[in-house]
Amino acid sequence: MDKWEELQESVGFTFENVGLLQEAFTHSSYVNEHRKEKLNDNERLEFLGDAVLELTVSDYLFQKYPNLAEGQLTKMRAAIVCEPSLVEFAENIHFSKYIRLGNGEEKAGGRTRPALLADVFESFIGALYLDNGLKNVIRFLERVIFPKIDTGAFLETVDHKTQLQEIVQRDRDVLIQYDILEESGPAHSKAFEAQVVVNGQMLGRGEGRTKKQAEQNAAKEAINKLLHRK
Amino acid sequence: MDKWEELQESVGFTFENVGLLQEAFTHSSYVNEHRKEKLNDNERLEFLGDAVLELTVSDYLFQKYPNLAEGQLTKMRAAIVCEPSLVEFAENIHFSKYIRLGNGEEKAGGRTRPALLADVFESFIGALYLDNGLKNVIRFLERVIFPKIDTGAFLETVDHKTQLQEIVQRDRDVLIQYDILEESGPAHSKAFEAQVVVNGQMLGRGEGRTKKQAEQNAAKEAINKLLHRK
Repeated sequence: MDKWEELQESVGFTFENVGLLQEAFTHSSYVNEHRKEKLNDNERLEFLGDAVLELTVSDYLFQKYPNLAEGQLTKMRAAIVCEPSLVEFAENIHFSKYIRLGNGEEKAGGRTRPALLADVFESFIGALYLDNGLKNVIRFLERVIFPKIDTGAFLETVDHKTQLQEIVQRDRDVLIQYDILEESGPAHSKAFEAQVVVNGQMLGRGEGRTKKQAEQNAAKEAINKLLHRK
Repeated sequence: MDKWEELQESVGFTFENVGLLQEAFTHSSYVNEHRKEKLNDNERLEFLGDAVLELTVSDYLFQKYPNLAEGQLTKMRAAIVCEPSLVEFAENIHFSKYIRLGNGEEKAGGRTRPALLADVFESFIGALYLDNGLKNVIRFLERVIFPKIDTGAFLETVDHKTQLQEIVQRDRDVLIQYDILEESGPAHSKAFEAQVVVNGQMLGRGEGRTKKQAEQNAAKEAINKLLHRK
């Protein structure tokens, strides 16, 4: 079994055009050192893959979080389709060892360079899309990205009140209520205390210089309670 | 015929879920002034439509310009999926009159505000995608965006030598050759003159402080000649 067969087995897809898969894993430094072979590097596939990833992740978030506003969806998407996240996804499926690198880049440690790994992840998505369309890309992401979204890992990008809403809304018809318990201090330096009550149960308290801040802190405490209980 | 039927006839699509179409044309200011109706504004659809547009345009450019490098494709995509271009597309198909605006926003001239029009174009794309998938979006773009790409209108974002190559490559096996005709001036202030010869025919001359600049200017002259001749 050659390395391309091994890679296909590892990702769970058989490419109709293996050339696309090879192109996705070919860094420009390799092309420069093998001019006679007239290879293509992975940069055009990366251009396409970036857009494919943007859409598939957007669509997933759109469906999964029907109550999140556009600004919050945008923040979550940015946290998912960013270099550190893509590097993590690429490492989880051991992409690095299949990359075709030039000797110079190899010696300079290119194989573990985050930007390079993230690019290969995108160019692989581009190749998968060209080879067999969006459906296969989605099947792939159902294994390597969507489960991580489902754990709530990227909810950290949204504010605590919204997070709490998303966590408890899994069960329908949940009533979340915020109360201001106390307001103290002189006008120029007020302090507030708030509590959050979920379906009649007090789940968190918080303080802050504004009502909003106190409510956010109450929501934060409620989230910690809920997530540790589970 | 109500305005939504008219709009569907005008864009050439019958929506399965007309609610999506209406949502795409509903500005937040309208929602705020009609709280009892519990409407959704178009912002979530805009989030999705933005990504759909990014992919469909990327795919089209990728296929159309097999020789353009990633950096040049990225520049072209940015010129197509940017506010001024989207506004132009939205105006060409008379989107503005269908937007549901609040009275305040209407009086403030919102209906012709570029950012607002560009957003509606994106949210419409999002609605079209949700209602019937990528294929309909592509059919729509084949009428409102791709023909403009085909005129070469967005090639201006890439350098002249690349432009010239893309213009003449429509006919296969074209040989483009640059010659430096003259080099003059002292070392600290050189001047060059270059010519470009396309299939044996001299099409442009240019001057510059570097060879590269002189060649770019020669290519620019050739492009002007070619585009005006057609």
